[in-house]
Amino acid sequence: MAGLTDPDLLFAAEGRALSIARDLYAGVKDLPIVSPHGHTDPRWYALNEPFPDPAQLLVVPDHYIFRMLFSQGVRLEDLGISPLDGSPVESDPRAIWRRFAEHYYLFRGTPTRLWLDHVLEHLFGIDEPLNASTADRHYNTIAGLLKQDGYRPRALFERFNIEVIATTDGALDDLQWHKAIRDSGWQGRVVTAYRPDAVVDPDFEGFLGSLDRLGEVSGCDTGTWAGYLDAHRQRRAFFKTFGATSSDHGHPTAETANLSDAAAEELFNRIRHGSDDERERKLFRAQMLTEMAKMSRDDGLVMQIHPGSWRNHSPGIFQKFGRDKGFDIPTRTDYAAALKPLLDCVGLERDLTIILFTLDETSYARELAPLAGVYPALKLGPAWWFHDSPEGMRRFREMTTETAGFYNTVGFNDDTRAFPSIPARHDVARRVDCAYLARLVAEHRLREDEAHELALELAYTLAKKAYRL
Amino acid sequence: MAGLTDPDLLFAAEGRALSIARDLYAGVKDLPIVSPHGHTDPRWYALNEPFPDPAQLLVVPDHYIFRMLFSQGVRLEDLGISPLDGSPVESDPRAIWRRFAEHYYLFRGTPTRLWLDHVLEHLFGIDEPLNASTADRHYNTIAGLLKQDGYRPRALFERFNIEVIATTDGALDDLQWHKAIRDSGWQGRVVTAYRPDAVVDPDFEGFLGSLDRLGEVSGCDTGTWAGYLDAHRQRRAFFKTFGATSSDHGHPTAETANLSDAAAEELFNRIRHGSDDERERKLFRAQMLTEMAKMSRDDGLVMQIHPGSWRNHSPGIFQKFGRDKGFDIPTRTDYAAALKPLLDCVGLERDLTIILFTLDETSYARELAPLAGVYPALKLGPAWWFHDSPEGMRRFREMTTETAGFYNTVGFNDDTRAFPSIPARHDVARRVDCAYLARLVAEHRLREDEAHELALELAYTLAKKAYRL
Amino acid sequence: MAGLTDPDLLFAAEGRALSIARDLYAGVKDLPIVSPHGHTDPRWYALNEPFPDPAQLLVVPDHYIFRMLFSQGVRLEDLGISPLDGSPVESDPRAIWRRFAEHYYLFRGTPTRLWLDHVLEHLFGIDEPLNASTADRHYNTIAGLLKQDGYRPRALFERFNIEVIATTDGALDDLQWHKAIRDSGWQGRVVTAYRPDAVVDPDFEGFLGSLDRLGEVSGCDTGTWAGYLDAHRQRRAFFKTFGATSSDHGHPTAETANLSDAAAEELFNRIRHGSDDERERKLFRAQMLTEMAKMSRDDGLVMQIHPGSWRNHSPGIFQKFGRDKGFDIPTRTDYAAALKPLLDCVGLERDLTIILFTLDETSYARELAPLAGVYPALKLGPAWWFHDSPEGMRRFREMTTETAGFYNTVGFNDDTRAFPSIPARHDVARRVDCAYLARLVAEHRLREDEAHELALELAYTLAKKAYRL
Repeated sequence: MAGLTDPDLLFAAEGRALSIARDLYAGVKDLPIVSPHGHTDPRWYALNEPFPDPAQLLVVPDHYIFRMLFSQGVRLEDLGISPLDGSPVESDPRAIWRRFAEHYYLFRGTPTRLWLDHVLEHLFGIDEPLNASTADRHYNTIAGLLKQDGYRPRALFERFNIEVIATTDGALDDLQWHKAIRDSGWQGRVVTAYRPDAVVDPDFEGFLGSLDRLGEVSGCDTGTWAGYLDAHRQRRAFFKTFGATSSDHGHPTAETANLSDAAAEELFNRIRHGSDDERERKLFRAQMLTEMAKMSRDDGLVMQIHPGSWRNHSPGIFQKFGRDKGFDIPTRTDYAAALKPLLDCVGLERDLTIILFTLDETSYARELAPLAGVYPALKLGPAWWFHDSPEGMRRFREMTTETAGFYNTVGFNDDTRAFPSIPARHDVARRVDCAYLARLVAEHRLREDEAHELALELAYTLAKKAYRL
Repeated sequence: MAGLTDPDLLFAAEGRALSIARDLYAGVKDLPIVSPHGHTDPRWYALNEPFPDPAQLLVVPDHYIFRMLFSQGVRLEDLGISPLDGSPVESDPRAIWRRFAEHYYLFRGTPTRLWLDHVLEHLFGIDEPLNASTADRHYNTIAGLLKQDGYRPRALFERFNIEVIATTDGALDDLQWHKAIRDSGWQGRVVTAYRPDAVVDPDFEGFLGSLDRLGEVSGCDTGTWAGYLDAHRQRRAFFKTFGATSSDHGHPTAETANLSDAAAEELFNRIRHGSDDERERKLFRAQMLTEMAKMSRDDGLVMQIHPGSWRNHSPGIFQKFGRDKGFDIPTRTDYAAALKPLLDCVGLERDLTIILFTLDETSYARELAPLAGVYPALKLGPAWWFHDSPEGMRRFREMTTETAGFYNTVGFNDDTRAFPSIPARHDVARRVDCAYLARLVAEHRLREDEAHELALELAYTLAKKAYRL
Repeated sequence: MAGLTDPDLLFAAEGRALSIARDLYAGVKDLPIVSPHGHTDPRWYALNEPFPDPAQLLVVPDHYIFRMLFSQGVRLEDLGISPLDGSPVESDPRAIWRRFAEHYYLFRGTPTRLWLDHVLEHLFGIDEPLNASTADRHYNTIAGLLKQDGYRPRALFERFNIEVIATTDGALDDLQWHKAIRDSGWQGRVVTAYRPDAVVDPDFEGFLGSLDRLGEVSGCDTGTWAGYLDAHRQRRAFFKTFGATSSDHGHPTAETANLSDAAAEELFNRIRHGSDDERERKLFRAQMLTEMAKMSRDDGLVMQIHPGSWRNHSPGIFQKFGRDKGFDIPTRTDYAAALKPLLDCVGLERDLTIILFTLDETSYARELAPLAGVYPALKLGPAWWFHDSPEGMRRFREMTTETAGFYNTVGFNDDTRAFPSIPARHDVARRVDCAYLARLVAEHRLREDEAHELALELAYTLAKKAYRL
């Protein structure tokens, strides 16, 4: 390939599957980006300040990157990641960048490599591989461009052809940056999404205090079950005024419950006073998924459930560096039994949309596709996190399509805080989907006109429809 | 492709894998159909009445179809499916057909689409895609043909080149339609299979009454453990007089037990009086699998175990519409531990055949292939239900062959009540197997002469041998 | 193909993926064999006696072979496998060989077939397929060659271009054959590996007596926890004097524990007196994995964990024939929770190497790759046992690379006692890896120069580095 990325990236090597994939991709590659779920910082769009330097932009905040380097013996401190006790870390961005470049070969065969090569070439015009010997030169190129106005957040947003992007904000967030974006008159469409984990999960740090705070910001009495539910309704309505069309729920498991009102109230009262009964705390999380689903039925917010990640698996790292340091490990996740209470309650609703994600691929064909292929309220979110990769996306299609079809899926989520990689991620997803559709056509399982319709659905339309954007 | 189905359907797009697949398929495509496990209605063959209309033939009874439409917001009533309370439903078959046709795009990428296009083209001579605009025309074509004698059940049976087909009948069934077939002098070979779930599973609706009835029809005292077992032996012998060569067992799990005679008798006595102990009811099911295996050892009926489906997952649908409404959801299923009591008892028998199915693909390589690859009594049934699909069958071969080989598998089951789709289903299976064998040859893992032998085994011989047909 | 094996075995059928695979393979096919984990008998290299006959060399000791024949109704006695009670078995090697040859078609599509065809052609110069009609001729050819000096163990070792091979020896082994090899002056590098299951697992036959014996051979007091641990340290040091660079641990599960010293000591005392508490015996095994990991941290032995095999699944076979008769069945294995105590203790160590294996492929993408992709102490062993096969190795790469990369894997293990098949097994692994890398290049996910580097790493360098050989 010339440059870092080939025009035929991820397509079949030759033959009909290649030529069909090229045709399909030509029809979708320039479509606007719809990013219905992600973690970019609304402050960027509000303030529109330049990004600081190549290391801060591309290395330090990317857990895919620092977890791999750490696994091969690089210390987190040497990548600029600060221990909680404030002890010193590498502060020279160029030194961090060099360390990353020297280890870039570790990413061979990973999606990080595909995304970063795409960013280097398409965003920064670089066409020589990143390694120890090119590290400085590429650093200079990127650092120079980041100073230009065309590389500020809003300019990139427009250059990336983003039609709409959702951020994810905690239930207590005042959405000041969303307000600032709106007040600025800038036309970029940035919406929020309601993420209430901190006020729903009794195991979340500072849970009880957060309930107090929830009462303050909502004007509801979170000392009672009724007031607590009202507070959620208030906050959801508030989030809707900043464009929210969805809520998002990151639970350790997919367990749901459907208690009677009286039992739920009693449970809340125990939880509100700091129950240390592990079973009760789990039950409360489970009940709250069903409560959120009922609110979604009433207010129309699309509900996303992201279960099955064991957060902060290493206590050593958690104590030293805090959350989100690459030590979140997927676990086995059941859905057929776990979701039943919720589904018994609202699963047959035709106007409700619940989007399920998984980190346990064994559930795709066995549980998720059969569930989404019959319950009107359920749809399948795209391959998530570790599975947001060419093989992961291919397995997702191969294991869900035959039972759930394409129309019970919802297009792509980039799910990222790595803003410059958003076009790369959507590009990889579009390519993988086109390659999959091309294979179906090449094997005569689908007509070519249908594949073109589907390529458009998967790249653009399904996400807009499912997320009501 | 010209028409709805391409001659190279499901083969590699080009090259040696394509040409080898074509050769292999040419050798097996016209072989007679052996259908050792399915759910067609023996009454059809007995009475040989015309099928009513396109909707009743192709849409209303097919749970693959109505579950997908329901998942996308179509009401079951609008597809002609009657609630138990008798409230009115769509009764115009043309309206049902149109509704189906409008939503036919939902099946893109699913096996239903492959089967139905095959039926439309090869059975009804239709070569234009089904959609809203062709719905009426195709309806007329099909409705017209269904009135012809050549489209009655027996004529279709012969046209489909069915050498033998098994129906599945409950233990209490008087097999009157099988008797009528035999008495009619018609030469089509239709055999029964013994399905005793209703008199083996204490959770089955009306279980205790069914035991009474079992006593009546068998002339045995089902009030005692010995009499109850004798009743099974009687019924199995009766089923054998109508050609049965197999029994079939649809259990929620694969759990088996091997109690002492005394303990089994004691358990039966509690169950016979309506035990409401969930553990006991499970244990009884588990014990009965082993009892059935012992009877198979004695009377030669091949034993089929179909575990792992959570039946009637939605109580809302079950209460309104009853069983089999598309809400059966696969669950995780263990085999290594669950089958051990049964295997300890009869697993080393060389004249016994137990055919295992699964809805949990994770068990293929991990448990089922290792078990079938060593226990003489075990064989692997084909990819089942949601996995009876091109990708599902491919995964089955890829995950079982290297450990269990081809000769511990048993060919294809169509497992369907959708009679007109039987040739389509066998055709898809033959194509997928030929494509798989062609890949092995193209990668030099198998010689071409061996692949031809195997294509014949997989399409025809293994099923006859394994099911003793 | 001419002969039994094709030069393009396991590569893509044609096109760029084929030509790239050929290029990659050309660069690695003649590399020396590094065999860091296996089960060949050091006595062979010490005594250098001729192998007895074709059946004893290739059939009788190979559980892949006799389990398949047994599954299809061949009696173990007829394959020369002796019951423990000494009742007579087939003793004519030619009769055993004929029986095998007649059933050789059962291995179509299995790795055994690939390995054996490779051995027949490349080691014995045979180019006609093995079957009933060629059985005698091939027997004569092989039997004749086995009498030649060039077919004695040391000559084969050199012909196979083995740079180093590890055997696996029990903790109580006096390593006399390793001593004899060293004393002989022969230059072949054969090292041992420390396998302490018999003195770590309370469920191992003769456990308490083995602890006594461990005391004797180590000169430590294995009546106390401190003495018992010292005995392990002594034996590990002793094994290191015979080249050991690794230990190996075959546990039923991956469970680990990290008790306080006092609690561990108390547990040991109960175990030492023959605790029959199943929970305690499990906990002791779990604790010992962590103890071994701590010793590895101190003495530098690479630790291998091989969990998840249910040994001797059939009590009928175990009682009649004893261990290792093909009745080991994989089970579901969890890692994220099971390994946590060990990882909390030593997982962040950068100078410790723990190599994880699995028989449960569902853990590759869900748990093992995420764990190895972040914990510095963890690496992933290659596809193991039933998964040491073309499809198994392909799934391993597809499900681990995107998260863990290539550099958290450790190359190939042949893991075999079938000495003549070692080149065949490494050849299959090299081919599968080259085919995988070629696909990445053909899909533009990797540059060709990188693929050449990786082919060398996967075939040779990673194993040497990971195992410190």
